[in-house]
Amino acid sequence: MLLSAVDFSHKLLKETVSEGDTVIDATVGNGSDTVLLATLVGSKGHVIGFDIQKQAIENTKQKLLLSGLTKQVTLLHQGHETVAEVLEEDARIGGAIFNLGYLPGADKSVITQKETTISAVAALLPKLRIGSYIILVVYSGHSGGMEEKNALLEYVSELNQATYKVLQYGFINQINHPPFLIAIEKKKTPYMK
Amino acid sequence: MLLSAVDFSHKLLKETVSEGDTVIDATVGNGSDTVLLATLVGSKGHVIGFDIQKQAIENTKQKLLLSGLTKQVTLLHQGHETVAEVLEEDARIGGAIFNLGYLPGADKSVITQKETTISAVAALLPKLRIGSYIILVVYSGHSGGMEEKNALLEYVSELNQATYKVLQYGFINQINHPPFLIAIEKKKTPYMK
Repeated sequence: MLLSAVDFSHKLLKETVSEGDTVIDATVGNGSDTVLLATLVGSKGHVIGFDIQKQAIENTKQKLLLSGLTKQVTLLHQGHETVAEVLEEDARIGGAIFNLGYLPGADKSVITQKETTISAVAALLPKLRIGSYIILVVYSGHSGGMEEKNALLEYVSELNQATYKVLQYGFINQINHPPFLIAIEKKKTPYMK
Repeated sequence: MLLSAVDFSHKLLKETVSEGDTVIDATVGNGSDTVLLATLVGSKGHVIGFDIQKQAIENTKQKLLLSGLTKQVTLLHQGHETVAEVLEEDARIGGAIFNLGYLPGADKSVITQKETTISAVAALLPKLRIGSYIILVVYSGHSGGMEEKNALLEYVSELNQATYKVLQYGFINQINHPPFLIAIEKKKTPYMK
């Protein structure tokens, strides 16, 4: 069965995130990706989760408590554009995931924004480990969503093909703007072993 | 590693084509997909391969001979738009693959055409088994390629979402028009068991 963008994002994370990794959940939302990442990195790894909504941080904290995964997760009630200040200068991350749009079940006017999304991606790219992914699940059906989608597609389609592969994955015959996926992989350069 | 469109097409075929299936190689070309399909369907299955170029049919015949896979393959030196005349009225296919564009190493002016490509897809859709795929690997860098690509995207994006999932998969930051993939899956409808 052809996987939805969300299921494909989980598949990609499972393929590349390893035990002990540091990874980023740029939009913890209801916490389901945070739980997946915390499971994948294990007790010696580290998930750093961001969200600007207190409700998202609280929901995720509850979910982690119930799953016994709090130890390896740091939840930050702040925007993902602050990620550069949070990570060590020489940090290497094993992956990052963004779920763009609004928090399901909350105020639909609070949405991710093109400037902060792109700023966070730009800050994460130099820290991404070779072979790992920055994944964005892009919802564009809400007010403001199309603008973020277009700005993001323009940004990622200009990433240097010598250093990055940028994949777009999504269903194209659905009327209600289903989410699609962008995955950025850091490539091995010819001079690296 | 994020798979290329060609590698992803092979992965999808391996996931869905079963022993004993009837499948279609709409553009046998150099025969590599034909060999893969013949292996997947086994000696009790049937691969029907089309190509309008004699050289493609000959190359593929050689490759099948060397692999000992001739028994389950029928090669037809004719266009894939004739597929409706070739298949039984009640035939059910376990998959189909198209590699659009020109035959590598041959005359680049002989290319697949939007009318015949769409006509073949339209003829195959009603015969596709639930859960199986029609896959198109789309090259658009050659003269005439962009026209076929646009017509095809328009056609598949209008397929009814109650019956079909249409996936687009491809790299978007490469300057030389790399091939991308379209996969059409026939869905189970609510009234089917």
